[in-house]
Amino acid sequence: MKKTENRPLTDTVRAIQWTNNHLKLLDQRLLPGQVVYQELHTVEEVTQAISEMVVRGAPAIGVTAAYGVVLAATNAFQEHPDNWKTIAREKLKLLGAARPTAVNLQWAIERMAKVLDECGSDPEKQLLNEAVSIHDEDIEANRRMGEIGSEYLRDAAAVLTHCNTGSLATGGFGTALGVIRTAYSKQATLSVFVSETRPWMQGSRLTAWELLQDKIPVTIVADSACGYLMQSGKISWVIVGADRIAANGDVANKIGTYTHAVNARHHGIGFMVVAPTSTFDLNTKSGKDIIIEERSEHELLEYSGVKMAAKGAHAYNPIFDITPAELVSIIVTEKGAIEAPTEDKIRQLLH
Amino acid sequence: MKKTENRPLTDTVRAIQWTNNHLKLLDQRLLPGQVVYQELHTVEEVTQAISEMVVRGAPAIGVTAAYGVVLAATNAFQEHPDNWKTIAREKLKLLGAARPTAVNLQWAIERMAKVLDECGSDPEKQLLNEAVSIHDEDIEANRRMGEIGSEYLRDAAAVLTHCNTGSLATGGFGTALGVIRTAYSKQATLSVFVSETRPWMQGSRLTAWELLQDKIPVTIVADSACGYLMQSGKISWVIVGADRIAANGDVANKIGTYTHAVNARHHGIGFMVVAPTSTFDLNTKSGKDIIIEERSEHELLEYSGVKMAAKGAHAYNPIFDITPAELVSIIVTEKGAIEAPTEDKIRQLLH
Repeated sequence: MKKTENRPLTDTVRAIQWTNNHLKLLDQRLLPGQVVYQELHTVEEVTQAISEMVVRGAPAIGVTAAYGVVLAATNAFQEHPDNWKTIAREKLKLLGAARPTAVNLQWAIERMAKVLDECGSDPEKQLLNEAVSIHDEDIEANRRMGEIGSEYLRDAAAVLTHCNTGSLATGGFGTALGVIRTAYSKQATLSVFVSETRPWMQGSRLTAWELLQDKIPVTIVADSACGYLMQSGKISWVIVGADRIAANGDVANKIGTYTHAVNARHHGIGFMVVAPTSTFDLNTKSGKDIIIEERSEHELLEYSGVKMAAKGAHAYNPIFDITPAELVSIIVTEKGAIEAPTEDKIRQLLH
Repeated sequence: MKKTENRPLTDTVRAIQWTNNHLKLLDQRLLPGQVVYQELHTVEEVTQAISEMVVRGAPAIGVTAAYGVVLAATNAFQEHPDNWKTIAREKLKLLGAARPTAVNLQWAIERMAKVLDECGSDPEKQLLNEAVSIHDEDIEANRRMGEIGSEYLRDAAAVLTHCNTGSLATGGFGTALGVIRTAYSKQATLSVFVSETRPWMQGSRLTAWELLQDKIPVTIVADSACGYLMQSGKISWVIVGADRIAANGDVANKIGTYTHAVNARHHGIGFMVVAPTSTFDLNTKSGKDIIIEERSEHELLEYSGVKMAAKGAHAYNPIFDITPAELVSIIVTEKGAIEAPTEDKIRQLLH
């Protein structure tokens, strides 16, 4: 490990903020060109913001939904003091349907609904406490994962990450990016590379932006250049998040993750997955049971209104892939790390 | 092999055309949005067109330069009949410097200069004959490679190619894309995938465009999705061209080629390199001796004037990579194919 002075652990961006009586959400669709916060006063607005991807990233969606429950209940209580609980619960159904696949969305709503059931009169204080707890616990879990994961990076000269797993994708701090933040604070010579992450460019648009806010230098590379980058010997670890982890340790994550994992193995480079225990789905036996969402070909054929491809050309646009457990060197959770993950080790950690 | 009716071997696009007394070049910078031919009447215009990448692809640059020599000589003969050879030769030096690394450029100019030296009076007929020969020989070599390479694709359901190696990159027909054309003409059920090829998008912009002109269906995929595509079992062969092949069989080609090669090997998929024998450089011992050109980070940070990345972010933009010979299943040349290439096999084929 190179001896360098420690740097402060920076984490400037807060994409989800509760201010007085309403929610502020950083509109991630407009980044990095414009930094605009939406001000949301109703659960309907929150539902729409999740649905239209003003906010993205499974943990961030969960935290946002928790605040949405606060708005649903307090507005219902003010407008319909007699049957506010019934009205609020109806609205939570719509909130829960804002994105079909985000497990954290359902998890957060269910946790909030339990507190709502126990509320006597004015629900604001109790529900806001719970939403803030969910938010704080997410950041705290990310910080713990940052500590645990960064221990493995003590001798790392450079790391590569993919997509965005930072403050923008979580309650704050980030999962994979939280590990990178922590490692950078301990060792300021660490070089951070991020792959563009076609077609949405979360690497170039979001990860680069939020690291720049914290003055952590980052270098963008084309997704396809990562094999060459690994071959050059620069990269010590590839570090990614996860959208879902199956019982056997197979990891569903942003398209491109698997290509990186294959290259990491070929070059003998560590492949680290950073995800809270809520990302594990023990009901999913293996990656084979995860259906990969395909989105519109237009995401590949044009960018921001500029046509990229030949007119009449078609594209195939899967947006997740599955990295089999045998290519994963380590999974870092807030409860500890699992090296060379297997179903036994995962069940042992989770129970 | 699936029994299907043969299709005609289509090859509609001619990016380099000699018409009466001047050269027409398809401006590849404007594709696929606009199909515009530049009309070039002087060697200075040809030099500029090569330098500014109106035409790209090493074989295409060679053919273009050959016609440039015709223009240099005929114009000099008309304007300065007394010392036209001296004047023409001076202009060939500038033509040869239009792109620093294209071996085919020097090769074509030297071949044309030999004919120029032998010319008695009006040089037009002799030089035009030689330029047309260079052009025709390139197409003929590509067709032979198409025949040889396509024999290996008899049982292929789908192939993946990268960048553009077609009519646009050569005198016509193409190298890797020539193999795909030929295979498709024999077996119309063959599926063709092309990776976008960031940052220049030659896959989306050029390969998709020229295959569509010939009614060969093509599906664009993100570069990073190719690992997942190979994992799905769809792809039988990855087929690419080459910018230079070292004596030991290491292949320099467009960035992303190596990432595909590593994934092909991981999935037990054949990796075919298609290149004429003029692409081999026996003076280059191995890929380690090839310097990888890095271009401006702006090619990654913005696209067609649209800013993609966070302001202030930096990018690393190598535009070639080296695939070691041990990852290459076969090299197809116009003189025959070399399976599991080694220096001995290469020297045997070339001599």
